[in-house]
Amino acid sequence: MSEQWEPAFGDLAHLGHLEVLTPSIDGSLRFFTDLFGLFEVGCSGNSVFLRAWGEYQLFSLQLTESKTAGIGHFAFRVRDRNTLRMMVRNLEDHGVEGSWIDAGFGHGPAFRFRAPDGHFVELYFETERYSAPAHLAAGFKNQPQRRGVYGIAPRRLDHLNLLSSDVKADRCFYQHLLGLRLTEQIVFDDGSEKGAWLTATNKSYDLALTLDHAGGRGRLHHITYFLDTREEILRAADLLVEGGVKVETGPHKHSIGQTFFLYFFEPGGNRIELGSGGYLVFDPEWKPIRWTQADRAKGQAWGLKTIESFHTYGTPPIEKTGLA
Amino acid sequence: MSEQWEPAFGDLAHLGHLEVLTPSIDGSLRFFTDLFGLFEVGCSGNSVFLRAWGEYQLFSLQLTESKTAGIGHFAFRVRDRNTLRMMVRNLEDHGVEGSWIDAGFGHGPAFRFRAPDGHFVELYFETERYSAPAHLAAGFKNQPQRRGVYGIAPRRLDHLNLLSSDVKADRCFYQHLLGLRLTEQIVFDDGSEKGAWLTATNKSYDLALTLDHAGGRGRLHHITYFLDTREEILRAADLLVEGGVKVETGPHKHSIGQTFFLYFFEPGGNRIELGSGGYLVFDPEWKPIRWTQADRAKGQAWGLKTIESFHTYGTPPIEKTGLA
Amino acid sequence: MSEQWEPAFGDLAHLGHLEVLTPSIDGSLRFFTDLFGLFEVGCSGNSVFLRAWGEYQLFSLQLTESKTAGIGHFAFRVRDRNTLRMMVRNLEDHGVEGSWIDAGFGHGPAFRFRAPDGHFVELYFETERYSAPAHLAAGFKNQPQRRGVYGIAPRRLDHLNLLSSDVKADRCFYQHLLGLRLTEQIVFDDGSEKGAWLTATNKSYDLALTLDHAGGRGRLHHITYFLDTREEILRAADLLVEGGVKVETGPHKHSIGQTFFLYFFEPGGNRIELGSGGYLVFDPEWKPIRWTQADRAKGQAWGLKTIESFHTYGTPPIEKTGLA
Amino acid sequence: MSEQWEPAFGDLAHLGHLEVLTPSIDGSLRFFTDLFGLFEVGCSGNSVFLRAWGEYQLFSLQLTESKTAGIGHFAFRVRDRNTLRMMVRNLEDHGVEGSWIDAGFGHGPAFRFRAPDGHFVELYFETERYSAPAHLAAGFKNQPQRRGVYGIAPRRLDHLNLLSSDVKADRCFYQHLLGLRLTEQIVFDDGSEKGAWLTATNKSYDLALTLDHAGGRGRLHHITYFLDTREEILRAADLLVEGGVKVETGPHKHSIGQTFFLYFFEPGGNRIELGSGGYLVFDPEWKPIRWTQADRAKGQAWGLKTIESFHTYGTPPIEKTGLA
Repeated sequence: MSEQWEPAFGDLAHLGHLEVLTPSIDGSLRFFTDLFGLFEVGCSGNSVFLRAWGEYQLFSLQLTESKTAGIGHFAFRVRDRNTLRMMVRNLEDHGVEGSWIDAGFGHGPAFRFRAPDGHFVELYFETERYSAPAHLAAGFKNQPQRRGVYGIAPRRLDHLNLLSSDVKADRCFYQHLLGLRLTEQIVFDDGSEKGAWLTATNKSYDLALTLDHAGGRGRLHHITYFLDTREEILRAADLLVEGGVKVETGPHKHSIGQTFFLYFFEPGGNRIELGSGGYLVFDPEWKPIRWTQADRAKGQAWGLKTIESFHTYGTPPIEKTGLA
Repeated sequence: MSEQWEPAFGDLAHLGHLEVLTPSIDGSLRFFTDLFGLFEVGCSGNSVFLRAWGEYQLFSLQLTESKTAGIGHFAFRVRDRNTLRMMVRNLEDHGVEGSWIDAGFGHGPAFRFRAPDGHFVELYFETERYSAPAHLAAGFKNQPQRRGVYGIAPRRLDHLNLLSSDVKADRCFYQHLLGLRLTEQIVFDDGSEKGAWLTATNKSYDLALTLDHAGGRGRLHHITYFLDTREEILRAADLLVEGGVKVETGPHKHSIGQTFFLYFFEPGGNRIELGSGGYLVFDPEWKPIRWTQADRAKGQAWGLKTIESFHTYGTPPIEKTGLA
Repeated sequence: MSEQWEPAFGDLAHLGHLEVLTPSIDGSLRFFTDLFGLFEVGCSGNSVFLRAWGEYQLFSLQLTESKTAGIGHFAFRVRDRNTLRMMVRNLEDHGVEGSWIDAGFGHGPAFRFRAPDGHFVELYFETERYSAPAHLAAGFKNQPQRRGVYGIAPRRLDHLNLLSSDVKADRCFYQHLLGLRLTEQIVFDDGSEKGAWLTATNKSYDLALTLDHAGGRGRLHHITYFLDTREEILRAADLLVEGGVKVETGPHKHSIGQTFFLYFFEPGGNRIELGSGGYLVFDPEWKPIRWTQADRAKGQAWGLKTIESFHTYGTPPIEKTGLA
Repeated sequence: MSEQWEPAFGDLAHLGHLEVLTPSIDGSLRFFTDLFGLFEVGCSGNSVFLRAWGEYQLFSLQLTESKTAGIGHFAFRVRDRNTLRMMVRNLEDHGVEGSWIDAGFGHGPAFRFRAPDGHFVELYFETERYSAPAHLAAGFKNQPQRRGVYGIAPRRLDHLNLLSSDVKADRCFYQHLLGLRLTEQIVFDDGSEKGAWLTATNKSYDLALTLDHAGGRGRLHHITYFLDTREEILRAADLLVEGGVKVETGPHKHSIGQTFFLYFFEPGGNRIELGSGGYLVFDPEWKPIRWTQADRAKGQAWGLKTIESFHTYGTPPIEKTGLA
C-alpha cells in the first residue's frame, strides 16, 4: 500500500516555523521584540524563539546566531501522525535522505532533510500550544494571546520565499513529494521557470521559489508576517521609517497573489516582508496562473517597477552560513 | 472498502452556491444587481443566477421566485469525483435519502437530500468556470472578473447561517457525514447546544447553525457575502442607509469568528450579512471554542448587545415556502 | 473703536488644552500614558501634563487630582496678541468677570473666566512649542514628534463636549462673545435647544454643548482625541477590550458631524471619545444643520440607538469637584 | 483706510473651482463622470460643469474644450462681499490688472486677473448652492448629496498644483496679495525656491507651486480630488488599472503635507491626483517647513523615488492653449 500512497493537497497542514540566521543576534532580537512586536518565548543554545500574538503554536520564529544571515531551516506541520509517517516513507522511497530529530523546542519529533536546492526542511506533527501568562491573556476566547499593544505586532507568520538555482526542480519536489498546490508561476517564453508559488492551505501561497540569479544554493529571499489590514501596513511603514529602518520597496500591491506588501531588512541582513490581503483559493482543480516575461515587465499591480535589489539581494549561500 | 470510508475535513472543497427564495423577485433582483453589486449571469424557470466579481464559478446566488422568503437549497462543491461518489454512498449507508439531479445551471450532476432540520443540500463536483465578456475582463490575471465598479460589490459568497430546531443533531450530521470541521459552538450550562460554526476550509466557518426559538424547520437566518476590508463595510453602511435600506445591526465585530459584520434585509425579506476579517484556522487538531451562557450575555466583541430581532426573525418554515 | 469690535470666526485659533479632574490620579495617569498612548511632559502642583504625538504645543491634557471627575478648565488659543486683548475687553464690556493669570505651564498669560453654565474657560496667545528629545524625534520634518509606537496613540486633542443647563444661553455666549461658528444643533419641536456644535476651525466642531438632564452645572460629558483613520479606532476597540476597559458605545458613525466614534471611561470616571473622519466646513456662510426630535429618534448614522448612559452619565457638578 | 488694508489669512475662504482644458472633451467627460465618479450639473458654451458629491457649491470642475490640456482658470471664494471689494482694490493698488466678469455658471460676479506666471485667477463671493434632485438626495442632513455609488467618487476638490517659472515671485504674490499661508516650501542650498505649498484653510495646502523646469508659463502640474480614506485610494488604484488607466506613481505618502497620493492622467492629458490624509494646521504662527536639496533626494515619505515624469510632464504653456 505504501507504493500507492502519494501526498495530496492538505497533507501538509501549514507552514509551522522558520529558523532565521543572523550575524547580529542582539540587534535582530531587539528589532523583532521591540519595533516589530513579536514575543520572546524561550531560548536554547544559540537560538531565541519568538511568536506573534495570533499563533496557536508556541513559536514561529527561531533566531539563531550565525556567521551570516540566511534560512536555517523551515518546518511544515503535517495533518496527522500517520500522514507524517507515510510522507517520510515516500520521501525515502524517492531517495531523499533525511533523519529524525528528537522533539525540540515547541514541537515533537521531526524529519529533517534537504530540498533540491539545499534548504533544510523539517516535517512534524506533535506541537506545543501556547498558553498565555495572565498579563498576556486574550480578551477573546478564540484568540491565543492578547493582541500586541506595542509596535507593528503582526498577527502571524505567513510564508517564506526561497531563492532557488533550479525553480522547476524545486517546484516539482515541493509539489509532488510534499503535496503543495502550485497556484501561480512565472514561466518565460523559452519555457524556463523563474518563480513558483505553492500552498498548503486556502491561502494563495505558503512558500515561494524565485530564481537565484547569483548562482548560490540554499539562499533566502525573504520571510513574511501577516497583518490583518492594509492600514496596519501603512502604519508599519511610518513606524519603520521613524524607527530608522529603511523601506526597500512598497507599500504596494503584488501582481502575484494580489497581496499588499512592504519590504525592509532586519538588522541581521534578512529581508522581511509585511503582507496583507490577497485572495483565497477554493477551487480543488485550481489551474496555476502563468505569468510571462511580458507580464513581469509591467511591474507590480499598480505599476511600481520591481526594485533592482529585489533581483540581486539574498542571504549568502548556505555553505557560507556555517550551517551546512 | 466503502464500509471503512469516512468523510474527512477537506472532502468538501467549499460552499458552492445558495438558492434564496423571494416573494418579491423584481425587488430582490434589482437590489442585488444594483446597490449590492452582483452580476446577473442567466435565468432558468423562475430563477435568476447571480455572481460576485471574485468568484471562479459561474454563479453563487440563485434567486427563485417563491411564496415566501427562505433558503431553497445550498450546495457544497466536493473535492473530486471519487470523493463525491464515496460521500453519497456513505450518506445512503446512513439512511439519508436523496437523489441525483442532472447537471443544472452552472454545474454538473448533484446529489440532493435533506439535512435533519429539513434544509435541502446538494453536493456536486463538476462546475462551470466563469468566462468574462470583454467589458468585464479582469485587469489582473489571477482574478476571474473585473472588480465591481458599482455599489457595494462584495468579492464572494462567504457562508450561510441556518436556523435549526436541533442544533446538536444538525451539527453532528454536517460534521460526521459531510466532514465539516466544528470551530466554535455555543453550549449552555445545561449542556444544550445553541449554535455551531462549521467549516470546509481554513476560514473559521462556511456554515453556521443557530437554534430556532420559533419551532419552525428549515428556516434561514442569513447569508453572507465577503468584502476585502472593514473599510468597505463602513462604506457599504453609508450606501445602504442612503439607498433607503435599514441596517438591522452593526457594523461591529462578532465575538464568534471575530468577523466584522453588518446586517440588513433585502427586499424579499431575507437577512443579508456583509462580513470581513476574522481569523483562519490552520491547526489540524483545532479544539472547538465553546461559548457559555455567561459569555453570550456580554454581547458582541466590543460590547454591542445582540439585537432582539436577531433571535426572533428568520424566514418562514420551509413548508410555507411552497418548496417542500 | 472697542465699541465696534466684535469677535469673528477665526479669532479663536483652536482649542488649546483641557484640564481634566480625577479622583484617581495614579490610575488615570497610568491609563493615559500606557494603553492610551499619551506622553508625560511635566508636572506642577497636583497636576500632570500630557501630550499627543501630533501636537505642536507642549501639552493638551492637564490631569489634576481632585475630589471628583470633571473638567477643571479648557483653553482656546487666540489668533494673535491684539485679538486676545480686544476679545477680553469685549468680554468685560459684556459683564463677564474674569482675571488674568500669569504664564502657566506651557503657555503665557491667560484670561480666565466662567462661561454661563459655570465652566472655567481660559484664553491665551503665547504658547510653548514642543521640542522632542532625541529618542522621540520625528522622522518627518513636518511632524513635531515621532508617531506613538505604543498603545492607541491618538494624533491630537480634537474637541470637548460640555453638559449645559441652558444650551441656548451657552451657545449664544460661545458664538457671539468668542466668535465660534455654529455648525449643527438639536432643536426640538417646541423650540428648545438640546445641543449645539461649535467650531473655531474648518473642523465641524471643537466644542459641543448638550443639555444636562440632571440639572447640575459645569459638568463634562466627554473629551475627544483624534485618530487618523477609522481602522485605528477599530484597533483601539480591541486594545481597550483586551486591556480591560469597557466600551460604552461604538464604534459607529455619528449623525452629527459624521465622525466615527468610540466611547469609554478612563479610570477617574471621565468619559473619553476616540474620533476620526467627519467633514470639513469651508462655506463662510455655513447655515447650521438643525436636527429635530424626530431626527434624533432615528439613532446614530447607521441606526445604532443612543445608549441610555449617554443621557444620564456626566461628571459631578462643578461645585462638588472642589474647584469652584 | 484702503491703504492700511492688507489681506490676512482667512480672507480667502477656500479654493472654489477649477477650469480644466481638454483637447478631448468627450473622453475627458466620459472619464470624469464614469470611472472617476463626478456628477454633471450643466453646460455652457464649450464647457461642461461637474461636481463631487460632498461639495456644497454647484460645481468644482469646469471642463472646457480647447486646443491643449491645461488650466483655464481657478477661483477662490472670498470670505465675504466686503473683503472681496477690499482685496480687489488692494490688488489694483499693487498694479494687478484685472476685470470684473458678470455672474457666471454657479457663482456671482468675479474679479479675473493673471498671477505672475500667467495663470488666470478669479475671486468671487456669491455662489450657488447645490440642491439635489430626489434620486440624489442625501441620507444625512449634513451632506449636500447622496454619496457617489459608482466608481471612485471622491468627496471634494482638494487643491491644485501649478508649474511656475518663478516660484518665489508667485509664492509672494499668493501669500501677500491674497492672504494665503505658506505652510511648506522647497528651498535649495543656493537659496532658490523650488516649490511652495500655500493654504486658505486649516488644510496644509490648497495651492502648490512647483518650479517649471521647461521654461513655459502658466502651466498646470496637477489637480487633486479628496477621498475620505487611504483605503478608498487603494480601491481607486484597482479601479483605474482595471479600467485601463495607467497609474503614473503611487499610492504612496508624500513627505510634504504627509498626504497619501495616487497620480494618473485623464484622457485629455491633465495629471490628476487622488489624495487623502495629511495633517491640519492649527498654529496661527505656523513657521513654514523648509525642505532642502538633500531632503528631496530621499524621495517620498516611505522612500519611493519621485518619478522622472513628475519633473518633466506638465500641460502646455498657456499661450498654446488658445486661451491667452
